[in-house]
Amino acid sequence: MMVLITYDVETLTPEGKRRLRHVAKYCLSYGQRVQNSVFECLVDPVQFKQLRALLEKTIDPSKDSLRYYMLGSNWKKRVEHIGAKETYDPEGLLFID
Amino acid sequence: MMVLITYDVETLTPEGKRRLRHVAKYCLSYGQRVQNSVFECLVDPVQFKQLRALLEKTIDPSKDSLRYYMLGSNWKKRVEHIGAKETYDPEGLLFID
Repeated sequence: MMVLITYDVETLTPEGKRRLRHVAKYCLSYGQRVQNSVFECLVDPVQFKQLRALLEKTIDPSKDSLRYYMLGSNWKKRVEHIGAKETYDPEGLLFID
Repeated sequence: MMVLITYDVETLTPEGKRRLRHVAKYCLSYGQRVQNSVFECLVDPVQFKQLRALLEKTIDPSKDSLRYYMLGSNWKKRVEHIGAKETYDPEGLLFID
């Protein structure tokens, strides 16, 4: 399933910058960065459970936020990109040997 | 229809900062800010056409990007928020007199 993950992490402190780095690293390990704080993750339910557990342990919920958008199976029809940094097709990764 | 709009605007220059302010202002006039660069806009097709025309005239497509996600009619089931700044129900606005 395709899950879009967006986040806001408060980076006023070194600790906040550390949280941001970790959130980005975890998202990168499960998906693709499409904008600075926006990731598209093609995951199965078990992977999504693992990823959200990592993210939700990392953020400070009084300062940071995460949003998950379940884009469903027709997700390609739902997305349109305008401008810089056009992204790759995440399903294309399936064909890399 | 619910359209999720995310953007990255390069703000290294005063001109970039100006573009960012304008993009945020246009999104705010059609929807609700749910994270720093993430807006949920409950719009009809005509409004969406107007909004995207404004946004696409504003950005520098060699430096900035916009992404539109059409969340469909079951959008409430697709969204989950974790952490700070829980948002309002945008449809709630319909009941404000």
